[in-house]
Amino acid sequence: MAGEKGFTLWFTGLSGAGKTTISRVLEGHLRERGSKLEILDGDIVRENLSKGLGFSKEDRDTNIRRIAFVADLLSRNGVPVITAAISPYAEIRNEARELMGDRFVEVYVEASVDTCADRDVKGLYAKAFSGEIKEFTGVSDPYEAPENPEFVCHTECETPEESAEKLLAYLEERGFVPAKEAAAA
Amino acid sequence: MAGEKGFTLWFTGLSGAGKTTISRVLEGHLRERGSKLEILDGDIVRENLSKGLGFSKEDRDTNIRRIAFVADLLSRNGVPVITAAISPYAEIRNEARELMGDRFVEVYVEASVDTCADRDVKGLYAKAFSGEIKEFTGVSDPYEAPENPEFVCHTECETPEESAEKLLAYLEERGFVPAKEAAAA
Repeated sequence: MAGEKGFTLWFTGLSGAGKTTISRVLEGHLRERGSKLEILDGDIVRENLSKGLGFSKEDRDTNIRRIAFVADLLSRNGVPVITAAISPYAEIRNEARELMGDRFVEVYVEASVDTCADRDVKGLYAKAFSGEIKEFTGVSDPYEAPENPEFVCHTECETPEESAEKLLAYLEERGFVPAKEAAAA
Repeated sequence: MAGEKGFTLWFTGLSGAGKTTISRVLEGHLRERGSKLEILDGDIVRENLSKGLGFSKEDRDTNIRRIAFVADLLSRNGVPVITAAISPYAEIRNEARELMGDRFVEVYVEASVDTCADRDVKGLYAKAFSGEIKEFTGVSDPYEAPENPEFVCHTECETPEESAEKLLAYLEERGFVPAKEAAAA
């Protein structure tokens, strides 16, 4: 059965880049293969672990450290995890990498601010540009793109389905997920 | 192998009742049998999930809800968990019970305030009685003992080893942990 090896896919990217969408597609593929998976989505974590925290650098860092703490607890017990929070600061992502070592897979869900603003599914970019929302990553708050991520989802030139399939192939290659034939056998 | 069935041993009891000590002894027994286990100790959780929270009812409730969120994530993926925080309020413990259903095992680590104050391993009761520490459970803050816990550790008349062994036997009986013979086979 898949999912015996714990790992953490640490998604990072702007709001609207596609982190949640790709993680849901990948979840479907993994569940079909009988794998466990937990998705620690930014919104879920804000609600359950970080209510009361704001969007200052300090509060963002605290939020991300909590996600890393939980992702480590799960992945070290053989449970695959996807974290799908913006996680804008490289330093804290690197802390998470040090905590989890080989189990940590940084996935850059790449889309420019312009692309995300064009999509603007939740209408947040409009509010960020008008100043109604402050401290908005990529607009009025920094985003430090990963320099050496293990994997990049090129969302400007591939669909979420394509990104998820390529990521799945990568996980097979790394031995985190058994190849489909093996899983069916 | 043990540990395939997830469950949460929700320890509750005063500071100094023996929650951490008994959980460490039980951890030893479970690891000997090849079981996974995570201990969400009050101090560890305060450091990693709840820094900044105080000891008002509201903050205590938030802290306990976070522990329940993480214990649920782990136990629903087959990872046994012990939570070892005071968790003084019955209402929030019952929320955790509703969240986890059959996986939730409330363990009352029973010791009176007098007993805990006599032990006073960390010197906290002396400070609580002198007023140096405010909002101290059992002294200047309420503790609502469980009315129908699944299990009681009678720490005033049994050693931590005895409590842990009885608890292990209970877990075998419930089918959460395979009997020793089965595990060795």
